[in-house]
Amino acid sequence: MSFTEGKTVRKRPKYLQIIDYIKEKIGNGEWPIGSKIPSQRTLAKHFEVNRSTVITALEELTADGLIEGRMGKGTVVINNTWTLLAKNSSPDWDQYVNSGIQQPSRRIVQEINTSESNPELIQLSKGELSNEIFPLAVMKDIMGKVSQNIEAFGYEEPKGYLPLREALSGYLRTIGIQASPSSILIVSGALQALQLISMGLLQRGSTVFLDQPSYLYSLHVFQSAGMNLTGLPMDKEGLLPNHIHMTKGERGRAILYTNPCFHNPTGILMSERRREEILTASEKNQLPIIEDDIYRELWIDNIPPAPIKTMDKNGHVLYLGSLSKTLSPGLRIGWMVGPEPVIERLSDIKMQTDYGSSSLSQRVAAEWLISGEYQQHLDYVRHQLKMRRRHVTIALETYMKNAAQWSIPEGGFFIWLKIIPSISMKLLYKKALAKGILLNLGSIYAQEKGNYIRLSYAYASLEDLQKGIYELGLIIGELASR
Amino acid sequence: MSFTEGKTVRKRPKYLQIIDYIKEKIGNGEWPIGSKIPSQRTLAKHFEVNRSTVITALEELTADGLIEGRMGKGTVVINNTWTLLAKNSSPDWDQYVNSGIQQPSRRIVQEINTSESNPELIQLSKGELSNEIFPLAVMKDIMGKVSQNIEAFGYEEPKGYLPLREALSGYLRTIGIQASPSSILIVSGALQALQLISMGLLQRGSTVFLDQPSYLYSLHVFQSAGMNLTGLPMDKEGLLPNHIHMTKGERGRAILYTNPCFHNPTGILMSERRREEILTASEKNQLPIIEDDIYRELWIDNIPPAPIKTMDKNGHVLYLGSLSKTLSPGLRIGWMVGPEPVIERLSDIKMQTDYGSSSLSQRVAAEWLISGEYQQHLDYVRHQLKMRRRHVTIALETYMKNAAQWSIPEGGFFIWLKIIPSISMKLLYKKALAKGILLNLGSIYAQEKGNYIRLSYAYASLEDLQKGIYELGLIIGELASR
Repeated sequence: MSFTEGKTVRKRPKYLQIIDYIKEKIGNGEWPIGSKIPSQRTLAKHFEVNRSTVITALEELTADGLIEGRMGKGTVVINNTWTLLAKNSSPDWDQYVNSGIQQPSRRIVQEINTSESNPELIQLSKGELSNEIFPLAVMKDIMGKVSQNIEAFGYEEPKGYLPLREALSGYLRTIGIQASPSSILIVSGALQALQLISMGLLQRGSTVFLDQPSYLYSLHVFQSAGMNLTGLPMDKEGLLPNHIHMTKGERGRAILYTNPCFHNPTGILMSERRREEILTASEKNQLPIIEDDIYRELWIDNIPPAPIKTMDKNGHVLYLGSLSKTLSPGLRIGWMVGPEPVIERLSDIKMQTDYGSSSLSQRVAAEWLISGEYQQHLDYVRHQLKMRRRHVTIALETYMKNAAQWSIPEGGFFIWLKIIPSISMKLLYKKALAKGILLNLGSIYAQEKGNYIRLSYAYASLEDLQKGIYELGLIIGELASR
Repeated sequence: MSFTEGKTVRKRPKYLQIIDYIKEKIGNGEWPIGSKIPSQRTLAKHFEVNRSTVITALEELTADGLIEGRMGKGTVVINNTWTLLAKNSSPDWDQYVNSGIQQPSRRIVQEINTSESNPELIQLSKGELSNEIFPLAVMKDIMGKVSQNIEAFGYEEPKGYLPLREALSGYLRTIGIQASPSSILIVSGALQALQLISMGLLQRGSTVFLDQPSYLYSLHVFQSAGMNLTGLPMDKEGLLPNHIHMTKGERGRAILYTNPCFHNPTGILMSERRREEILTASEKNQLPIIEDDIYRELWIDNIPPAPIKTMDKNGHVLYLGSLSKTLSPGLRIGWMVGPEPVIERLSDIKMQTDYGSSSLSQRVAAEWLISGEYQQHLDYVRHQLKMRRRHVTIALETYMKNAAQWSIPEGGFFIWLKIIPSISMKLLYKKALAKGILLNLGSIYAQEKGNYIRLSYAYASLEDLQKGIYELGLIIGELASR
């Protein structure tokens, strides 16, 4: 909620200001009947008053019949100035809000989404490059250049801005993928690609095979569309394709999702051999693959094995890439490469969904690629990640040696920490949050056995990373000794 | 399809170039097994050869077993270099492409989408401001300013960039709507708002009441999610709310969609009285309203009646606005205003769909509003539309007097032409296209009775508008005299 309006009414007594504020919210329909108003504590903090002043205001509003305190539900709007005159005719938004097709995010994911925009927390969770790594000077230059050269822009072609697709075609060749601009679709990030696939290629009841654990378990993109997720176990080389067992009914209705480079959340890099095995299994089962390769360019030690897509001679693979993890998620630019009929179909759905991605973002993205600045920036990012990885592994060795086990990832953002003592992970999450540290637990990604945390070394400052790991070690020690 | 690769192989004989080109497309999976290759005519045109050269190439590829001519289906890929070695193991993408949840756009709408990016056609159809009206100089200035002041940007808050929501809160006050930033959600255009509503608030089998004809009939946003559209008749003051008949089962599961200002496609402006009647009917039936008001600022003669949202004291109305029709669709910036619980729910779904709109676009949009340039630009657009409307009505009077009837709209982009002679509209569409003129027929919008065309005076040049109307008059005359 926002309190900006409160500022205009400073001269009235505080309790009247609170009443005015709440009446306005109720009166203009922003807080409809049935909605919960902010807690007494929140109101007291905002209006810089004692809780007793808030209570005075709420009592008056209760006497007016506008609000009502309810056991276990807080204070709820029960009337507005209009319904006090007439009968209650407000639509039951609660019913609408709870009945859509798309499932709400899991509560813990929603909490994390909210907490992630809290700048005061130490974000050990956030899968995003630190602002410290953001290439501000070059971004300014490129935006300036784009703004000088821009022409009138309207809706783009369904597949996206052609010069960007041409630049991507050239970029993809550098990682071994032959793709003409006509087989590339620009999307607003890889997540949108998954959304389009779920809407455009799969029937309700289809099966999505995927790595387990997987980032995909933290989303509802496929489940909301009525698909079933079937997790496949992984070893150090990636997911194990011999665990794919398809029923006859699944043939032609299933898809395999995988994250072969620096897998989210485990950081595993799939070996070349495993890539071949997966493609072979996919061909044998006529099972198309979504190769989500958004972390590929974030290698630290060695260039990763070539994408599965490069071995794909039958159009089995839909390949996903993005600028979100390497440059900035704020651009909302990703891409999908696949057989033309599939790309045509999904571009039609993209047009039905949002009429294409931002022209500005597409032009800025094209300029990053064409100017060569993107490749230079990648070198810089790899360097920064290497330094951060070293820093974090030292901190882990120092403060977590007896508390956790981990492998050092060869790239990407994540270290998959296995907590050794048998402690309550929920309690760990809460205690860490109380200390100002935000964690992503393994359970979010459907890690069923063992206690895991996905630790990101990409986002927090070096100082915060060190401090966070230190505190985490202390909390684990404390919980273990109970 | 794109032919850019063809350019690199210019020295080989033409028929070998064609073979190389097709083999590459098949070999890398862009043209998977089962897909149709371009027509002989298209290939001949691209490679600048006679059709006989193309036939020679295709015969060789047929002999190789890669392609096959099929009756009524053109030439189809039946093998690739890989499957010639092994058995055919390609996924049956056709089956996937035809089986997703989201319905494909209607064929005529897909055709129009494609034809709309053909710059050689006279676009009497396009619902978009002409490039001539695009404020290029100011856009460059604003982008330059934004690029100078920008800071590192990542994922935005779920509801969108706060300074943009604050600026919109101020803008909305100018049209009578009280909305704090917390009850505003930034979307990538109004279409995305509808998509979010369909996914987030409605169950399968819900009813969407709407104007008939309506732009919404040309989309599949609600139908694909399993909702039923129930059209309501309109008169000159807008849709007739006394035709809303809800069954008991529909209560709490239905919604009303309307386009009160300069309705698409008819151009009708809803009267103030009608707005009140609709709100009353909605309250009586507990039927929430989607007020799609994206054409409001395009008034030519008088400021339109206040939005229904301004009279809404119960949070009945979700209000939609956008920069697409007034400034540029390429920004992909729209907004939705509604009760906070609804906005929270839809912002969660937006995060699940695409993680928010482009940071660049949001910053540029905010700067347009904050600097005051947006209001100045609107004045200019109104002036231009007034001039265009005059120009077009003169052309209609001159060339179409006996061919059609129309009302002069008080704003927006569209004139709803009723064709007088009883002719085949499909034939009219085809004959116009053969003359290089693209039309939108009334049937796209579910206009059942009478022969209608939605004529846009916003996009084509004045010269093309005149020429297009002149030709249209001739074709109608010719068809009528058969």
